[in-house]
Amino acid sequence: MQLLEDRIIRDGKVFPGNILKVDSFLNHQIDVSLLEDIGKEFRRLFENDGVNKILTVESSGIGIACLTAQQFGVPVVFAKKSQTKNIAADVFTAKVHSYTHGRYYDIIVSKEFLKPEDRVLIIDDFLANGQALLGLLKIVKTAGAVPVGAGIVIEKGFQEGGKLIRETGLRVESLVIIDSMDEKGNVVFR
Amino acid sequence: MQLLEDRIIRDGKVFPGNILKVDSFLNHQIDVSLLEDIGKEFRRLFENDGVNKILTVESSGIGIACLTAQQFGVPVVFAKKSQTKNIAADVFTAKVHSYTHGRYYDIIVSKEFLKPEDRVLIIDDFLANGQALLGLLKIVKTAGAVPVGAGIVIEKGFQEGGKLIRETGLRVESLVIIDSMDEKGNVVFR
Repeated sequence: MQLLEDRIIRDGKVFPGNILKVDSFLNHQIDVSLLEDIGKEFRRLFENDGVNKILTVESSGIGIACLTAQQFGVPVVFAKKSQTKNIAADVFTAKVHSYTHGRYYDIIVSKEFLKPEDRVLIIDDFLANGQALLGLLKIVKTAGAVPVGAGIVIEKGFQEGGKLIRETGLRVESLVIIDSMDEKGNVVFR
Repeated sequence: MQLLEDRIIRDGKVFPGNILKVDSFLNHQIDVSLLEDIGKEFRRLFENDGVNKILTVESSGIGIACLTAQQFGVPVVFAKKSQTKNIAADVFTAKVHSYTHGRYYDIIVSKEFLKPEDRVLIIDDFLANGQALLGLLKIVKTAGAVPVGAGIVIEKGFQEGGKLIRETGLRVESLVIIDSMDEKGNVVFR
């Protein structure tokens, strides 16, 4: 998606440890008109897949998921992150390893909001090591719902997440894939 | 807002401790078309106030803020919750007491995204004891920006937050105000 590549070049910042900060337009400050365009692109990509629910995980996925859901005319469900040890019986849950914070957390979705008749498009801002996406996928499968695919805004193509997720058979559509980047601001897109 | 009152009566659930669960349409599963109507109503209420930024706090405010920002054609900034002890120098911060979890946490906004020229509409899903809103207001004032008002989806009129916030002089517009509710599902709107 050219618009997004241009925006990353213009406003993204690369920090040591392969960190790409896009918090001026995607995940702290949010350019809602850019999210509209992102939503339209996901709609185009998954137009014929009978999507009736958008699933994401708090927090930075929520805005993208809402603007995408608007294009599909379907509801959003966002998984909640939890570090409490007591998980209620009426929720689906998956354990996610955070490489960034060096710990595990649970993501949780109420059983009320994911049913076998659901055809679920999973949306997230980043795909890097793929752990959060694997957790969301596990929850969709546990619910007996159909995961029609994952719509990712930015995939770090030099990390293993994309390969890991595609090997499960899930269709992954990333609007941009970054093959390499450095702190001088050079970002190479696939 | 009649549409919202009807929806609360139909799908809201009251639990002991004056807890109103609206997670089937507002803060776990999200009815995006309802959020569109909410956004239009906030736009109508703050139409002539020169709003150029929407501020909220993660997570459940983000969807509402995005659909509201869409109506105004302005960006969203969402404050992040943090429990880390080291707060960086390049952020505005406020300490917030959570009655629900019985502890304090910090909310944080990067200084890059709030400037003296900003006219800020604060958006949140609930106003109960008002602590989160006070924190957001403090951040706007510290930034030297103008808080034009707060747009709240559901105000619990029987808790002290609304009074507390209005006493600061901030204009508060709540789409519904609940005067009382009980576990039999009786909800009385103001």
